[in-house]
Formats: sequence, C-alpha cells, structure tokens
Amino acid sequence: MNESYKKLIDHFGKLAHIEHALTFLQWDHMVMMPPGGNSSRSAAIAELTSLHHQQLTSEKTAELLEEAHATTPIEQQSIKEMRREYQQAICLPDDLVRAQSLAGSKCEHDWRGQRQENDWNGFLHNFKEVVSLARQEAQARFDTAITPLDTPYDAMLELYCIGDSAGFIADIFARLRSELPPLIHLVMEQQKTVTKPHFTSPYTLESQKNLSHQLMKSLGFNFDQGRMDVSAHPFSTGCRGDQRITTRFRDNDFLDALLSTAHETGHASYEAGLPEEWDNLPIGRARNLSLHESQSLLFEKQIFLSAPFLRHFTSFIHKHLPTTSTYCGRQIRDAAISVQPSYIRVEADEVTYPLHIILRFEIEKELINGVIKADDIPELWDQKMQEYLGLSTKDNYKDGCMQDMHWTDGSFGYFPSYTMGALNSAQFFATIKKANPNWKNNLDAGDISFATQWLHENIWSKASSMDAQEIIIAATGEKTNADFFINHLNERYIKNLY
Amino acid sequence: MNESYKKLIDHFGKLAHIEHALTFLQWDHMVMMPPGGNSSRSAAIAELTSLHHQQLTSEKTAELLEEAHATTPIEQQSIKEMRREYQQAICLPDDLVRAQSLAGSKCEHDWRGQRQENDWNGFLHNFKEVVSLARQEAQARFDTAITPLDTPYDAMLELYCIGDSAGFIADIFARLRSELPPLIHLVMEQQKTVTKPHFTSPYTLESQKNLSHQLMKSLGFNFDQGRMDVSAHPFSTGCRGDQRITTRFRDNDFLDALLSTAHETGHASYEAGLPEEWDNLPIGRARNLSLHESQSLLFEKQIFLSAPFLRHFTSFIHKHLPTTSTYCGRQIRDAAISVQPSYIRVEADEVTYPLHIILRFEIEKELINGVIKADDIPELWDQKMQEYLGLSTKDNYKDGCMQDMHWTDGSFGYFPSYTMGALNSAQFFATIKKANPNWKNNLDAGDISFATQWLHENIWSKASSMDAQEIIIAATGEKTNADFFINHLNERYIKNLY
Repeated sequence: MNESYKKLIDHFGKLAHIEHALTFLQWDHMVMMPPGGNSSRSAAIAELTSLHHQQLTSEKTAELLEEAHATTPIEQQSIKEMRREYQQAICLPDDLVRAQSLAGSKCEHDWRGQRQENDWNGFLHNFKEVVSLARQEAQARFDTAITPLDTPYDAMLELYCIGDSAGFIADIFARLRSELPPLIHLVMEQQKTVTKPHFTSPYTLESQKNLSHQLMKSLGFNFDQGRMDVSAHPFSTGCRGDQRITTRFRDNDFLDALLSTAHETGHASYEAGLPEEWDNLPIGRARNLSLHESQSLLFEKQIFLSAPFLRHFTSFIHKHLPTTSTYCGRQIRDAAISVQPSYIRVEADEVTYPLHIILRFEIEKELINGVIKADDIPELWDQKMQEYLGLSTKDNYKDGCMQDMHWTDGSFGYFPSYTMGALNSAQFFATIKKANPNWKNNLDAGDISFATQWLHENIWSKASSMDAQEIIIAATGEKTNADFFINHLNERYIKNLY
Repeated sequence: MNESYKKLIDHFGKLAHIEHALTFLQWDHMVMMPPGGNSSRSAAIAELTSLHHQQLTSEKTAELLEEAHATTPIEQQSIKEMRREYQQAICLPDDLVRAQSLAGSKCEHDWRGQRQENDWNGFLHNFKEVVSLARQEAQARFDTAITPLDTPYDAMLELYCIGDSAGFIADIFARLRSELPPLIHLVMEQQKTVTKPHFTSPYTLESQKNLSHQLMKSLGFNFDQGRMDVSAHPFSTGCRGDQRITTRFRDNDFLDALLSTAHETGHASYEAGLPEEWDNLPIGRARNLSLHESQSLLFEKQIFLSAPFLRHFTSFIHKHLPTTSTYCGRQIRDAAISVQPSYIRVEADEVTYPLHIILRFEIEKELINGVIKADDIPELWDQKMQEYLGLSTKDNYKDGCMQDMHWTDGSFGYFPSYTMGALNSAQFFATIKKANPNWKNNLDAGDISFATQWLHENIWSKASSMDAQEIIIAATGEKTNADFFINHLNERYIKNLY
C-alpha cells in the first residue's frame, strides 16, 4: 500500500466517525428519544450532516483522489468507489440541496395529514415542487456520472440499484407484468379450498419480544454484537460489532412481527458479514439496496416462510404464545402465505407485491424523464391497478398514489430495489438449494448455516469490490433472471413443494 | 445584541451540536450498546472530541473573543464564561493531554484487576505517572488562570467546584472533622434501641422500575422530556427537552434504587430548569458540580428521606412491592437512615459520608501541591480512617485508598464537590422551609412544588450568570455555612424531628 492510498484511507476513516455518530443519533431518534428532544436532535443531525458534506466535498478529498495511485486491483476498485462517493456528493449545487431539503420536509410533513383527508390537490401543490427539484437533481447526476447513462432516471437509480439500468429493469418487469396476473388468479383459486385461521388473541408485547429474540437466535444473530428494539416502522442500522434492528408488535397478529424480524435480521446479517478489512471505506459497503433487499427477503420469504423452517419454528410459537397451540404448523403457514390482491403495497403478499412495484417504477421513470406530469399520476395509477391487480383507485388517492412516503421527499429510484431484491433472493436460494441437496432436512432441524455460509462467501464478503451483476453472475452463473422467482412462486403456491 | 456577540453565539452553538452528539453517544455506550460496538464507538468519540477541541481552541474562537463587545452585563458575563471555557481548553499542551489520556486509560483499566487483588504496588506503578502528569496539568492551569489562584490544586478545583478555593473548603471541612465524630457516636447510641428490618425478598426488576417511575413522577420529572434506564452505575445526562437518568436495581434492596432515582432526578431537574434562552452557551450551563450535587442531595436526602415524604411514598412502595407490606413506613425509614461507619465511601450514610470526603480532600491537596508523594497515601489513609471513623485500613488497599475510580484517570479536585453539595443542600432546604412554614404538610401530601419553585427561581434559572457563592448568598443570605448541615443532622438523627 503506497502513501497516497494510505492517506485516502485515513481521510475516509475520519468521515466514517461522523457517519457513526449520525447513525446512532438517528437510531436513538427513532427508538429512544422522548418527544421533547426533537429540536436539539434535529439541529445536531443537520450540523453533523453539513460537517460531513463539507469534509467529503473538500479540496482535500479532491487532491487526495487526484494523487492516489493503486498498487493492486482491489485498491483500484477501492479508489473508484471513493471517487463515486465524492462525485455523488459534489455533483449537486448547494442551492438545490437546500431547496430539496426544504421542499421534501414540507411535502412529507403535510402529506401525513393530506393522506388522511384524501386531499390530492393539496398534496399536488407541494409535490410539483418536489418533482421539479428531483428532475434537476436527476439531470445534474446524469450530466456528471462517471460512467455514461441512458436517461436522467438512470442517474437516480444509481443511488439505490447501482449496476441495474432502467432498461434492464424494464425488460425484467415486463415479463413479471405478463406472468403474474394469471398466476395470482390460479393461486387464489387453489387457496379458496383452504380455511385460514384468523388470529385475534391479544399477544403480550413481552412474549412476542421473547419469540422474536428466539427467531433472531435461530437465524444466527449474535446478541453480543447487536440488539433488537421496538419502533413505529421496522428498520435496521448499525456499525461493525453493533447491528441494531427494530420490530413492531401488533397485539392481534404475531406473524407480522416475526416476518419483520426475519426481514431485518437478513439486512443485519449482510452488514455483519461485510469484510472487516474494508471497514469505513466505500469499497466495504453493502453493494446496493437491491442486494440488501435480496438478503432480507431471503431470510423472510425463502427461509422463514418455507414449510420446513416454519414447521420447525412452530414449537417456539406455541411455547411463547400458548394460545396459538390451537393452530397446528400447517394452519399457521396457511395464514402466512395467503395471497390476495390489495390496495396497499406494504401489506401485499410476495406474489402480488411485484405488481405494486412495477406500477410505481413505470410511473416514476416517465415522471423523472419528463414524459408525464405529476397531474397525470392518479389516472395512470388507477389504470395500472385495474390492469395488474383488478382494483380501481379512482378518486381513492389515500389508498392509491398517496400511500407511500418515498416520493414525498424525492426518493425516486428506490422502489425497483424491492422487486429486484425479491428476484435476486429467489435466484440465490435456488443456487444454495442446488449446492445443498440436504437443505430441506436442515431447515426442518432449524439449521440455516448452509445458507448463511454460502451468502457469506458469495455475497457478504464481496461488499462493493465488484459490480452488482458481477457478484450475481459469480454467485449463480448468470445475471438477474426472473425465471428463478417465477419458479419459486410456482413451487410454493401451485405445486406446494415447500 | 451587537454583531460581534452574535457571531460568538453562532460559533458556540455549532460546538454545542458536537457536544450533543458526544452526550448521546456516551449515554448509548453506557446504557444500550452491545459489547461488540466498543471499538467503533471509542474511535468515533475520540474523533468528535478532537474535532470539538480543535474548533474550540481555533484561531477563530480567539479572534471572535478578541473582537466581542458586550452591550449588557449579562452579555459581559456570557463572554467571560466563553473565555473561561476557551482558556481551560487551550491552556494544556497537546502532548500533555495525549499523555494523560494514555496514562489515565491504562491506570483505570489495570486498576479494576489490581483492586480485586489488593495489589497496591502494581497500582502505584501506573498511578505515579498519573500523579506526575496531573501535577503538570495543575501547574499549567495555575499559570494561565484568568483570576489569580492560591495553589496549583486550586486550579484543579476550578474544574469541579469553581468559586470555592481550597482554603475556603479546608476551613469548612475542619469544622466537620471535629464535630462529626462525636455526633456519629451519639447517633449510633440512639439507633441501638431501634430494630432495623433486613430486606431480603427478591423484588423483580419490572416492579422496581415501575416504582422508580412513580417516584420520578412524584418528584416532578416530565417523561415527555426525558427517560429512565438501567446501567451499572447510576448517572444523569441529556440536553434541553431530553433529560436521561439511569438507575441500578438490586433484587434484595429496593431502597438502593429509590435513593439513586431521587438523586439522579435532582440532577436532571437542575438541567431541565436551566434557562432556555442561554441554551448552548457557557453562561447557560449548571454553575459547578458542588451546586449540581446540592440539587441531587436535596432531592435524595432532604426530600425523599424526610419522614413526611417517605411516609407518603410508602403507600407506593407497598403497592408496587406487595411483600414490603409487612414493614410499616416507620420501619422502612429506620432502614433508610441507619448510620454506621464503614470502609466504602459509596455505601456510606449521610452522617459519615463527609469524613470519607475530607480524608480524600486532605490527601489529594497535598499530593497535587507536591507536599506528599503517592507512596505516602496508604499510611495517611489508615491514620485518617482511624481518627475520623475508627476503622483501620492497614494493608487493606482495596477497601482503602484503591476503592475509587476518580484518581485513576487524574480527576483530582472532584471529591470536595460531594460534601460542599451536601452542605449547600441543607442550607437551601433550611431556607425553603423557612419560606414555607407549611412544608411538612406539603411533603406529607407528596407535594414538593414549594421546593422546586424555589429552586427554579433561586438556583436553576441563574445557570452560570453569577459566581457560585453569589448565587448561594442571593438565595440564602450567606455563603456556604456548615451550620445548616450540622443542624440538619441534629434535627433528623438526634431530635428525630423529620
């Protein structure tokens, strides 16, 4: 390692300490802070964010990047990722960032009330400004991208799904759009004959917490290097040696917390499995949100919801929530894998979920590329919901285009990562099963180490040392391919294989 | 407010945001963080501490202080406190600070094992370096103090008890040293006739937590602006709108947690009562540790341990810990105010406690001023323990001079604040009672607002706008005077008045 590269490592290490502070101040904000702390906390977070931005975009960073010479391919990749991080931070004019922060905060804040009121026109007033600024952002990112891109929307995708172009995603989504509706129809016909249990007993917070702890242990979470808490919306965050996930507990639905817990444990496992030697460096980060989501969905859908694992885990459910003993493992699983088209994305099952995402992807792509206007959204939404899921959202904005927070603060390009993650998780798990013919017996015994070992070796340890599709090809032999996901749905929901 | 002063306010406001981050990263470290997070957290705290020190001691601070003009007496005092903060940060050479940090960490770390092993010689090896560096620190602070001081030890006192010189403290302590031993003898004679209950039932964490919550509510704590958690050693910290205290729960002794809770609630109430208009400025901070301790001891000893309040609160103890119902309020209080000389400071009652402090004050004063050597400590400790409390610590280092953490990292000058706080709390509460002849009835009804209103008006709202003894004189008509404390002990322990 030469001196110029060493200086870069030190510089990014200092930035990482500020990121560490921000990480845990934000965690505390969501999980621990009493309401009275809001104003001091917001001011401190704004100050540290600005300090971090100043240091990342400083002359010093530019000089160090200019002078840096790599002596190995890994160092070369490491410097490339540093350049990208610098570029993504410096490419936006300060005025734009400030205007976006103000417009985004206002739109998101007002949206909470407007959604309740089904007030599209009120929302539209703020949202037009958010869209206008997001288009400027996309254009600025497009103009300065270190590798050429097809459209401004592609530049937004880079923030969440780097490595997957809008064209690549569109091709994959086109196939799902045509294959999923008939499949959903078939699954629903088949599930008609199943009587699903309705869980209504109140389950205490304490016993559900203990059950979630047990699930995390079963999934390999190390409580010496992390913790689980409660928050309004489940999330995961943390740093080396300190992964923190949160779950939400509903007193009449124990499955909701278990699915969230499995999901967030997947995110945390990816972070915990990143190589220690690249700590605090851009090359050491999780590759992108699609891969992140592939890990959480692999833990949640491929492992936890699989018939053998859930059968195994039912004994813990019965133990911690004794009133569930009236339901056998089969009945609990029937409730967990029930398929039903619905208006709300976050409540959708794994078969209908991708259609919610495809709809949003198609709309936001055209919106950011200037093909449609914000005013056009409700009609498009209604059309697509009817076509994909057979539900109309005419005049129903709050259960339609106003249901998500993502667009309110300008996070366009985020949605596709959910479904790209679902496809990748099916592709990874198919490869894992092929490499481990004994997988069903392992899951039956609650042993998932065959999966986590493979993930560690093929995904987690790669961090950002390769491009996303390079990682996927090296791990599975091919790029993201929707076959695996469609096959998974057929095996689980039509053939009832697992 | 002129422009030059406004710039200073902005500058110190930015420093406060970094202090905010440090406050909550440290809280998290003590209360929430899993062991695996230690190394990242320590690095982040070191980086932010260094960033804060750089910004506080920067050319910019010096220039802004140079240019600042006050237009009111309050602005004048505000700038004076900023100067003091700047001076206290810049007066030590970087080499010395680094050497102290290393020597202090090593001495404290090794001490944990050495104390267990009663290994004085092992400890002495590290401790000599700590003392040598502390003497250099004291000399540097003495040489650059903004108001002239009598001895180098006085410069260390400024960090904890600013406003009280070593000479002033020594005079007060001399009186306690002569009056307390005969008083202790008398109290013990009187308490011989009382049969004290021994609490041994295991009390669950959950029920003790609920009881502590109730106590905090009774003492006026606002849970929208703070929280209570568990940690190995009780402490309090926080910021405007977010006061955080911790308590420790022993399963066989519910009084321990209640005393800690009352104590830390006193600290938190002082912080919460500081004037909002001076937030983030040195003038807006609590005046010194002696006054801070006076507030915690006022809540703990003057209010909670008073016969009428504890009688009132016994109904909550009985409610949350039903097995305590076999003890009446009188018996619980007898256990709480039992007096007995012992080796360990942190377990001492309020009558013997000051003698533990006086012993430490006398030794550390001579040690820092170069009159004695570190080697002399065990013999002096043994002599003084025999003289003040009738106990020998010969060859018993672990229950003698090795029992406290304070000296291990060089925090000389801290100890006197405990007893100066006890004296001030008695002086304040005597004044409060005089101004509110109905005080006993109020405490009997669990209403302490007569006390908190007085404290808010006379202590909390003053922050650092006056010197410590000026605040005490304005509030009580005279300087710190040991009469009030001695009178309090006589009334409580000899005359059994409350």
